[in-house]
Amino acid sequence: MSMLTDLYELTMCASYFDHKRNELATFDLFIRRLPSNRTYFVFAGLEQALIFLKKITFNSEQIAYLRKQGFKENFLDYLSKFRFSGEVWAVPEGTIVFPNEPLLRVTAPIIEAQIVESFLLNTVNVQTTIATKASRVVDAAKGKSIIEFGLRRTHGTDAGIKAARCSYIAGCDGTSNVLAGMKYGIPVFGTMAHSFILFFDREIEAFRAFAKTFPKTSTFLIDTFNDVKGAEKAAIVAKELEKKGFRLNSVRIDSGDLVEISRKVRALLDEKGLNYVKIFASGDLDEYKVEELLSKGAKIDAFGVGTRMSTSEDRPYVDVIYKLSEKMGKNGEFVPAMKLSQGKITFPGRKQVFRIKDKKGKFVKDIIALHDEKVEGEPLLVKVMEKGKIVYNLPTLKKIRETALENLSRLPEKYRMLRNAPLYPVEQSPGLRKMVDKLTRELKKAEHLD
Amino acid sequence: MSMLTDLYELTMCASYFDHKRNELATFDLFIRRLPSNRTYFVFAGLEQALIFLKKITFNSEQIAYLRKQGFKENFLDYLSKFRFSGEVWAVPEGTIVFPNEPLLRVTAPIIEAQIVESFLLNTVNVQTTIATKASRVVDAAKGKSIIEFGLRRTHGTDAGIKAARCSYIAGCDGTSNVLAGMKYGIPVFGTMAHSFILFFDREIEAFRAFAKTFPKTSTFLIDTFNDVKGAEKAAIVAKELEKKGFRLNSVRIDSGDLVEISRKVRALLDEKGLNYVKIFASGDLDEYKVEELLSKGAKIDAFGVGTRMSTSEDRPYVDVIYKLSEKMGKNGEFVPAMKLSQGKITFPGRKQVFRIKDKKGKFVKDIIALHDEKVEGEPLLVKVMEKGKIVYNLPTLKKIRETALENLSRLPEKYRMLRNAPLYPVEQSPGLRKMVDKLTRELKKAEHLD
Repeated sequence: MSMLTDLYELTMCASYFDHKRNELATFDLFIRRLPSNRTYFVFAGLEQALIFLKKITFNSEQIAYLRKQGFKENFLDYLSKFRFSGEVWAVPEGTIVFPNEPLLRVTAPIIEAQIVESFLLNTVNVQTTIATKASRVVDAAKGKSIIEFGLRRTHGTDAGIKAARCSYIAGCDGTSNVLAGMKYGIPVFGTMAHSFILFFDREIEAFRAFAKTFPKTSTFLIDTFNDVKGAEKAAIVAKELEKKGFRLNSVRIDSGDLVEISRKVRALLDEKGLNYVKIFASGDLDEYKVEELLSKGAKIDAFGVGTRMSTSEDRPYVDVIYKLSEKMGKNGEFVPAMKLSQGKITFPGRKQVFRIKDKKGKFVKDIIALHDEKVEGEPLLVKVMEKGKIVYNLPTLKKIRETALENLSRLPEKYRMLRNAPLYPVEQSPGLRKMVDKLTRELKKAEHLD
Repeated sequence: MSMLTDLYELTMCASYFDHKRNELATFDLFIRRLPSNRTYFVFAGLEQALIFLKKITFNSEQIAYLRKQGFKENFLDYLSKFRFSGEVWAVPEGTIVFPNEPLLRVTAPIIEAQIVESFLLNTVNVQTTIATKASRVVDAAKGKSIIEFGLRRTHGTDAGIKAARCSYIAGCDGTSNVLAGMKYGIPVFGTMAHSFILFFDREIEAFRAFAKTFPKTSTFLIDTFNDVKGAEKAAIVAKELEKKGFRLNSVRIDSGDLVEISRKVRALLDEKGLNYVKIFASGDLDEYKVEELLSKGAKIDAFGVGTRMSTSEDRPYVDVIYKLSEKMGKNGEFVPAMKLSQGKITFPGRKQVFRIKDKKGKFVKDIIALHDEKVEGEPLLVKVMEKGKIVYNLPTLKKIRETALENLSRLPEKYRMLRNAPLYPVEQSPGLRKMVDKLTRELKKAEHLD
């Protein structure tokens, strides 16, 4: 994956190399802003970022391709021996974070720090985007189970696996994705599609066939022809299962007015003494629909949520960027760096994020400060890599999931409203504000901008 | 990638296997509907679909995982010898297509046809989604060059590569993505980020350093501090390059009001005799912004388009589905299948799509018909796989790109408006309509729905 990079990383590095410029530099990876339909982010992607940094090298086939692109031999020679040797600080995966907070901070010789930019952004972007969306869905479900169903609509194979990983982190109970189950140990779920029903001569025959193969774990999809008629047939087969000592697990509804249908189906099942059969709903769901269904009294026990969650349909990216914040000066001390582009100003210097909680452990506010500044609150960034080696116990996926759910429970409810939530307060420390002011003045003078 | 599947494919197949049901069946892969912000789709993903079908097997590690999930030994034994042996018809990549038209048609023993569903949907979804979005951007640019810049915001590694592939198919001139360049031979572009400017003590020093390394191909990013002041410095270095016999390629603007800034920068460059220096613009662009910039008279020669195109931001998926359309009956003849779910009715039978063109070769309308029905127009589906072998010359990426651009030129302009375009007419043939009516009546009777 070392070649999964933007060409400009390599051209910049070739020029740094050309000019024998490879001093230490620090880059911050952070999200520029909150879109209108998000109030927080769930940070995810650190594990893949660290594994990438640990492993990145350039092989001879890659070097040969770069040679054809016109890169010079001495730079290619440097690349052929390339290893990442830097120091990395990061926020643990599953942490709830906000705009402008450094999520990953890389200090390394500029060429190393620069060349890894594209991959770091790519993996944090997709994972944080989906973990954030999934967290909203889980929160909206108020304790009802969510299963991730999005593989068919995720953006390719990697996104398919990452969507399962990140929605599980966010609190989903499992996925339909078998490869993700195998790779990450995520519980996998799934029973039948409409094609299974159609392949048999009658709907009820399909139910019977499936129940014979999976007597203990069947879910019948009941809306192929008509949901309530389908439920009647499911009830017949459930009764047949009872006689054999088994219980139908659930019925699934995938179309129509889920409030009305679920209530009818629940009544029908209860009337037949099948109150243990759960109702599972799917079909174009997201946090808004889940909230609406529950508020309107839908009788749904669990949700299968796919496309809209797994592509983060209403906002399929976060504005994640990676910006130079300091560089080694000629006197051997780091000097802060920032840009002044219109609407895209960045915070200079090596920074830390402090989180202030109330007595009950609820989040009150965050402060972005200089790394060594004395600030109240709990620091969020921890050292995860030193001299290119991971110096951090990568938590299990279950542990990351616990972190995400605990963070969510500590974020006051008002900041978790799906619509029109107030902004969680994120302040800049006095030291950081002073540095921004000073550097702005110096840059304007140096670049003759006044 | 054989395990990149939804669990329900495997549970259904286990039940088919259990009941010794593995008759031939046909599935159609098609897109259910046009979202309000699309008027056509550019089909992409066939090459990856066919390679998957050719290669799919299950290895012992995968079998071991499935055993732990409770699948029975005789089914696992079947899977361990699994190969896809079916027949596939498809529309060539780059073809413009519309809702309900079969894009890929699989006829195979039901277990084989079912088990490949998730991957086929996944790869066609991401590639068609991005090719379609990119086609709109290319069309809006009216001949100006578009370079795909989205790697950092695409959904993971596979999407990064596929976004480059599909935007190139749609008519973009290249990508920033080095791996996609290496893998697919797509031209790669890129020069510098803001960090390069900040790493040097002065903006002009950064320009000089870069020009020294790349005297023939430099693009200077001029908005780190102030775009017009940056252009002045770029002009100074361009003049220095001229003295050495080189020409600055372009300047890039990445923020602010691109109409106003590009006009100022163009005037400044022209005044200095640098009319050959091109202006390259980037930053949150999409088809709507590109159209707006050009209509307002922006002086932009080429666009770098990333996030919004490469994630298909306003619609990050297509409603692509895979539905059983016929199955082998007991008498050895295929019988049509369809579902009646609310709002999700499918078309039964083995089908072909016919496209009718006018004398100038412009598209007039499409007709979805039964495969053997006599219908005017040119059939779109061609046979691409027989008995599990690819029987189709996979076109080069350049050829696919030509197909896409030719298709776009043949689609009348009214259907290509970015907003409020009329619907392109897609009809059902008399034979298909008759089959739908007959089957609906039969199903309602058989399932007691009246």
